[in-house]
Amino acid sequence: MEGLWPRGCPLPCLSCTRRYNCSMFDFRIESASSEPGCQARRGSLQTPHGTIETPVFMPVGTRAALRALTPDQVLATGAQIVLANTYHLALQPGSAIVARLGGLHAFMAMPLPILTDSGGFQVFSLPKKQIDEQGVTFKWKKGGEAFLLTPERAVAIQEELGADIIMAFDECVPYPCPRDYAERALARTLRWEKRCLEAKTRDDQALFGIVQGSTYEDLRQQSARDLVPLDFPGYAIGGLSVGEGLEVMNRVLSWTTPELPEHKPRYLMGVGLPEDLWCGVGHGVDMFDCVIPTRHARGAVLYTFQGRIRVTNRRFKKDRLPPDTTCPCYTCQHFSRAYLHHLFTAEEVTGTALACIHNITFLQELMARIRQAISDDRFEAAKREFFEVYGSSSGPQRKAK
Amino acid sequence: MEGLWPRGCPLPCLSCTRRYNCSMFDFRIESASSEPGCQARRGSLQTPHGTIETPVFMPVGTRAALRALTPDQVLATGAQIVLANTYHLALQPGSAIVARLGGLHAFMAMPLPILTDSGGFQVFSLPKKQIDEQGVTFKWKKGGEAFLLTPERAVAIQEELGADIIMAFDECVPYPCPRDYAERALARTLRWEKRCLEAKTRDDQALFGIVQGSTYEDLRQQSARDLVPLDFPGYAIGGLSVGEGLEVMNRVLSWTTPELPEHKPRYLMGVGLPEDLWCGVGHGVDMFDCVIPTRHARGAVLYTFQGRIRVTNRRFKKDRLPPDTTCPCYTCQHFSRAYLHHLFTAEEVTGTALACIHNITFLQELMARIRQAISDDRFEAAKREFFEVYGSSSGPQRKAK
Repeated sequence: MEGLWPRGCPLPCLSCTRRYNCSMFDFRIESASSEPGCQARRGSLQTPHGTIETPVFMPVGTRAALRALTPDQVLATGAQIVLANTYHLALQPGSAIVARLGGLHAFMAMPLPILTDSGGFQVFSLPKKQIDEQGVTFKWKKGGEAFLLTPERAVAIQEELGADIIMAFDECVPYPCPRDYAERALARTLRWEKRCLEAKTRDDQALFGIVQGSTYEDLRQQSARDLVPLDFPGYAIGGLSVGEGLEVMNRVLSWTTPELPEHKPRYLMGVGLPEDLWCGVGHGVDMFDCVIPTRHARGAVLYTFQGRIRVTNRRFKKDRLPPDTTCPCYTCQHFSRAYLHHLFTAEEVTGTALACIHNITFLQELMARIRQAISDDRFEAAKREFFEVYGSSSGPQRKAK
Repeated sequence: MEGLWPRGCPLPCLSCTRRYNCSMFDFRIESASSEPGCQARRGSLQTPHGTIETPVFMPVGTRAALRALTPDQVLATGAQIVLANTYHLALQPGSAIVARLGGLHAFMAMPLPILTDSGGFQVFSLPKKQIDEQGVTFKWKKGGEAFLLTPERAVAIQEELGADIIMAFDECVPYPCPRDYAERALARTLRWEKRCLEAKTRDDQALFGIVQGSTYEDLRQQSARDLVPLDFPGYAIGGLSVGEGLEVMNRVLSWTTPELPEHKPRYLMGVGLPEDLWCGVGHGVDMFDCVIPTRHARGAVLYTFQGRIRVTNRRFKKDRLPPDTTCPCYTCQHFSRAYLHHLFTAEEVTGTALACIHNITFLQELMARIRQAISDDRFEAAKREFFEVYGSSSGPQRKAK
C-alpha cells in the first residue's frame, strides 16, 4: 500500500488540518492477514527518530528511565520505541527542565523514538480531582498547590518533552462506568481532543487521537466516527486494560477497529500480556504499551514461551537452565534460573535489571514472531501454536479468546 | 624483577609449603618509586582468570552481584578483579549451590578474577557470637540454627565458591582494642591461619595470609614476622579502615609493609577512599577493596577528580555537565548531572546503576593514573597534583597525609 499523503504538500503543516509534517510520519501496511475474521496487519511507521516495525510493543520508562536499565540495555532488548509518562515527568523534573536539557531524547540519552501519554490516565486515577470543561484540577502532592491540567497544557508539556508521538488529553472513565457518565465524558473528550489539535505548535510531533466510550458499543463507534474526520495521524483505543478482562476487551475492539481508517496506525493503550497482544493484533491493532514486563520483573516474574515463571519459587533454587532456553537476551545467554533465584532472594537489584532485560526482550521476540506470522499469512495458526506451549504452563494465565 | 618461583618445581603443589601452583600466580614488580620515603610500586599479578595490573582497586560484589550492574557493565568500568563475600554467599545461596552451578565465575557470569574474603570480618561484626579455639559459633538468622565457622570451614566454603584468591580466617578485633585482647587474638589468628594452610586442597587458588595486631607497633611487626615464614602467596593487612582514621592507618602501614616480603602482593582490606588509596600505595600496598564506591553511588554521591559531589544537591537540578567532564565512563559520556539528579529524586534505580558505573570507573581511572605516576617515577608529585584539584572541592574530605 502507498503512504497516505502526497509529498510536497502545498500547505504549511501547522495550517493543514493534520497539523504535522506527514512526510515524517509515513505509515505503510506491508502485509495483512487473509484469514477469515482476522484483521492482523504488518506495517512500518516512520518517526523523526527512526522507523518502527508494527505490530510493536513499547516498554514503558515512566520517569524517563526503564527500571534499572541503561539505554544501551534497552536497545539490546530489540525495543524499537519507548514510552514515557507526561504526568510523572511534569511533576519531576518538570517539562521546562527537560526542554532546557534538549528534550527527552537528549535528557535520557535515548536514540529510539519516544511516545508520551497526555497524563490524562494518571490524573483521572487520583482520588481527589475536580473536572470541569476547562480541564482537571488536582494537587501534585498533599498540601501542595492546585494544578490545572487542560488539553492545551497537556500538549504544551508534551511539546516541551519533545517525544515523537504525543497523545490527546481525554477524560478517562473508570470501569465499570454508568452509561450517562460514559456519554458525558465522551462528549467532553471530543471537545478536548479538538482543543489539543488546535493547541499544537510543533510539526515534528504526531498527535494521536484517543477513542473512548467505555464498554458501550454505540459510544465506541460514535467516538471513532467523531474523531476520524479530525484526521489524526494515528488513533489510540483508551479505557481498556482497566480490569474489564479479555472477553470485554475483545468485544470492545471488535466494535472499534473497524471504524478506524485502515491507513493509520492504531494503538491499544496499557496492554502487554501475551494473550492481550495476540487478541489486539488479531483486531488490527498496531501498537501496544504496558508496564507489566518491567513491573513483573521487579517481582521476579519472568515471561517465557513456555509460560510465566516466578523465579523465586523453590524449584528454581538449583536450576541450571536460563529463564528461557530459546531466548537470545543477555540474561538468558549468561545466567541460570538459580542465579536469578539467588539475586531475588538476596534482594540484589541486579536481579531486577536482568529480569527486565529478559521480559522486554521476550515481548520483542513475541512481536517479531507475530510480524513474521502476518507476513506468512498464518497469524491464527501461529497464535494457536503459541498458546499450545505458553498456555500449558502452570502460571496463572488468562484464557485467550 | 623476576617471578618468584622457578618453573618446573619438582614437588606437587599441595605438598609444597606454599600449597598452590605458583606458576598460576606469578607476581612481578615492574617499577618502583625512587622518591625518598616512598614505597610505591607497580606490578602485575597473574591469576587463573587473567593478569591484574597493580596497584589495583577491586570493587565489591557482596552477594555475587555488583549493585544494579551486569557483568558487562562491570567490565566496561575497567575493573580487573572483583570481590565477593564468603559470609553472605554461604548464607545465601550456600556455597554448595554455587559449586554445583560451576563456581562463582560461572554462577555470576564473571570472566574477571575473583577474590573472596574468609567471612571473618562479618562474623566478628555480629552482636552475638561465641569465640573459642575451634572457631566462631553464631546464628545466620534470629532463632536459626547455630553455625560453627572454623578456619577449615572457611577454606572449604571458599574452595566451593572457587575464587582465584581466597583469604585466611582471622580473628578480627574492634577498634580501639585493649592490648591484651589484641595480643590473644593475634596469637589465635596465627594458629588459625596455619590451619587454613593445612586445610587447603585446591592448587588453583592462592590463599593470602592476613596481618593483624590492631594499632600496636610490636604486634603488627610480630604478626608479619610470624606469617612470612608460612610463605603465603600474598599478604593482606586487616583490621584497618574500621574507624581509626587516616593518621592511624598511615602509622600502622608504616610499621607493617616494611616487614612483608617485597616480592609478594600486599592487600589493604576495606580501603577505597581516594586519600586512603594514595596513602596505601605510598606504603607499597598493591591491592585494595571497598564497598564505598557502590554504597555511595546508592546515596547519589559521585566521585570526580574535582572532588565528591552529591548529585541530589539542588545546584545540580539544571546542570548540563556530566558528573566528571574528564571521565570516559558510560554515565559521563551520556548523561547530565541534571538527569542523575532527576533519577535519584524520582527514586529510579537506574540512577544507582549509572552512579555505580561512574564511581567504579573513577577508581579504576585513579588507579591507572597512580600506576602511570609510578612508571614515571613521580608518585609524590602526582599525589600533590591530585589533591590540589580533588581536595579543593566542597565535599566532606578527609585530609591526606
